[in-house]
Amino acid sequence: MTEATTTGADLPRLRELNSLSIVRALRDHPPSTVTELSRRTGLSRPAVDVIAQGLVTDGWASVIEPGASSSVGRPARRYRFRAGAGHVLGVDVGVHKILALLADLDGTIVRSVRHAVDAQAGPAERLAELDAVVTDCLAQAGKTPTDIWAVTVAVTGAVDSTGRTSFFTPLPGWQSVDLTTHLAGRFACPIVIENDCKLAALGEQWQGAATDADDIVYLLAGLRTGAGLIIDGVLRRGFGGAAGEIGALKNVRWLNAPEHLQNCPGVPDSVGPDDAAAWVFNAARDGHKAARTAVNRYVKDLAIGAAALVLTLDPQVVVFGGGFSRSADLVLEPLRRELERLCLRMPEVRASTLGADSVALGALKLSLNEVDQRLFGGGLSAPVAPRR
Amino acid sequence: MTEATTTGADLPRLRELNSLSIVRALRDHPPSTVTELSRRTGLSRPAVDVIAQGLVTDGWASVIEPGASSSVGRPARRYRFRAGAGHVLGVDVGVHKILALLADLDGTIVRSVRHAVDAQAGPAERLAELDAVVTDCLAQAGKTPTDIWAVTVAVTGAVDSTGRTSFFTPLPGWQSVDLTTHLAGRFACPIVIENDCKLAALGEQWQGAATDADDIVYLLAGLRTGAGLIIDGVLRRGFGGAAGEIGALKNVRWLNAPEHLQNCPGVPDSVGPDDAAAWVFNAARDGHKAARTAVNRYVKDLAIGAAALVLTLDPQVVVFGGGFSRSADLVLEPLRRELERLCLRMPEVRASTLGADSVALGALKLSLNEVDQRLFGGGLSAPVAPRR
Repeated sequence: MTEATTTGADLPRLRELNSLSIVRALRDHPPSTVTELSRRTGLSRPAVDVIAQGLVTDGWASVIEPGASSSVGRPARRYRFRAGAGHVLGVDVGVHKILALLADLDGTIVRSVRHAVDAQAGPAERLAELDAVVTDCLAQAGKTPTDIWAVTVAVTGAVDSTGRTSFFTPLPGWQSVDLTTHLAGRFACPIVIENDCKLAALGEQWQGAATDADDIVYLLAGLRTGAGLIIDGVLRRGFGGAAGEIGALKNVRWLNAPEHLQNCPGVPDSVGPDDAAAWVFNAARDGHKAARTAVNRYVKDLAIGAAALVLTLDPQVVVFGGGFSRSADLVLEPLRRELERLCLRMPEVRASTLGADSVALGALKLSLNEVDQRLFGGGLSAPVAPRR
Repeated sequence: MTEATTTGADLPRLRELNSLSIVRALRDHPPSTVTELSRRTGLSRPAVDVIAQGLVTDGWASVIEPGASSSVGRPARRYRFRAGAGHVLGVDVGVHKILALLADLDGTIVRSVRHAVDAQAGPAERLAELDAVVTDCLAQAGKTPTDIWAVTVAVTGAVDSTGRTSFFTPLPGWQSVDLTTHLAGRFACPIVIENDCKLAALGEQWQGAATDADDIVYLLAGLRTGAGLIIDGVLRRGFGGAAGEIGALKNVRWLNAPEHLQNCPGVPDSVGPDDAAAWVFNAARDGHKAARTAVNRYVKDLAIGAAALVLTLDPQVVVFGGGFSRSADLVLEPLRRELERLCLRMPEVRASTLGADSVALGALKLSLNEVDQRLFGGGLSAPVAPRR
């Protein structure tokens, strides 16, 4: 972004800035009249009139003519932001599933496609499934890759500056996969690869359990435990993309915490290792003694790592998310008690309201942010997918 | 801060904004001609001329008339920011000493006064010593409280929203001291109370070991261990002021880490408990076996808490500061080795270059930031100490 100055050379750009301020004023509000837009932007009514008509011609806005039923005075036409001018993708590449969400520029989800994938699938097989999910999603929505303005893909493991999970990832053989290059063969728009916990945090801030908060510690609790951090309203990646990886420190007990559930005595042989935790939570709810003990031990260990994050960052809200958040009824109270005991200042502890979808929703939000940055950071021309 | 609009009502404010942009352009540069200021701000030369003369009248700038030795053409007069238009205070209230620094608006230190204080001193005695230090500092500089534009006081312990160390503080009886109200009896300007570790981090970013970094974990290592966090260039307090307090978590071993030094076998009886650590570091340097073991054990424990911070935040730089940083030669290498072992991505580890002064320097910097915010956030009138 450049600073506004008062030299004459900048006048054409100032006109663009006025267009941008109208687009922004349309985007965050219901359909608006020229008078309303004038009041909202501080631009004169004649100026707004000219700019708004230009935005319709260019495809950024559409006109709503006054209905015939309006009879008092001459009703004014209204302008609306054309959210369908562009679309974005948010994709979650998980251990067990791949989920793609397609949304318009308002973030309204147009299509959602989910494929199961084998937890043991190698990189080639997982990439092929990712391609298939994206193909299905676009086809069902009647879109082509050129209609897409930004793509964000969530992967498991900290993402380095090249878009790879070079530090560590539980996805088999995935460590050196160059997903950016793979997707660049298909999409000319910006492509972002990001860690699943970080995106889930963003999702919860956008549409989930923490829309009112700017300082959020998000816990992704499942067969693995991870964290995403939002500080002063902004998702934090850290200097090298590895923020939130407190779980790697043995002392804070996250590495083995889920084993209390998986190794709980009494789990029937018919229940596979991936489903043991769910069985234990259900059994605990029914009063099964060993199951209750296992849940308590799990929560005590979860709380140590959570306390490390809370003591470090002093957030307003801790969001308990991930697969285990379905059992928040069993976890939240003991988790609060442990944090009370361990922390100096107690944050609010809330259950995720988005569950497992928070990751893909966060990916969608990051795509929308990417579009916003290009839109409101640079100039404004007719709607066309930005290129990398 | 308000958004700039194009309505006529804002024109007087725009003129103020132009004055502000000239002040800013003067402040960060050597003495400048009207031509240079015009180029730097984008304002016309005649406009700059008028504004600069107004700033001289109001006391914001001084004129440097061209010297007689300049003979080619007609040399231009230069304008300089009057750093002496106002002054700020940064005070460190420690366990053993109180240090006050007085600086002008450029941050140039005009006076520095240090008094020793008894570690066991109660609140009344410590407050009286604080008042004495401030009185001495002002008197020696020939200033009165009305010359001071901002006061920041560093205390030990997390500082809550009321300026009190209500969570915890090692200063005897200090927990409920209302330092803001105490100082408000003397100073009408803004008064900020802040945690010593946080201010030390700010000091190192301003003038110390991390001036090139935006993501900094600062370790205050001494008889207690604390941390200050700078993320994306900004000092982070957390939602309730308690960020960086990871040391309160028993699992990360900071609480008892210094005991390895204090309880080291072989420390002579003549060495008091406060000086034992220094004796051990010296002995370790001389090859004393038990002392070397004690230092190694200390560093191993220090590294656990440091790793918790690094894994959470993924900083660019870790600064090893506080009293023990005098022995950085013994600590840095083993600390790096431990962090390599424990962390996913390795940050740079550097020794503090400011030592114990970093706290008071950070307090000074926060006072300067406070002045900047009031100056460039609001309007601009003739230099006078802002009131709370």
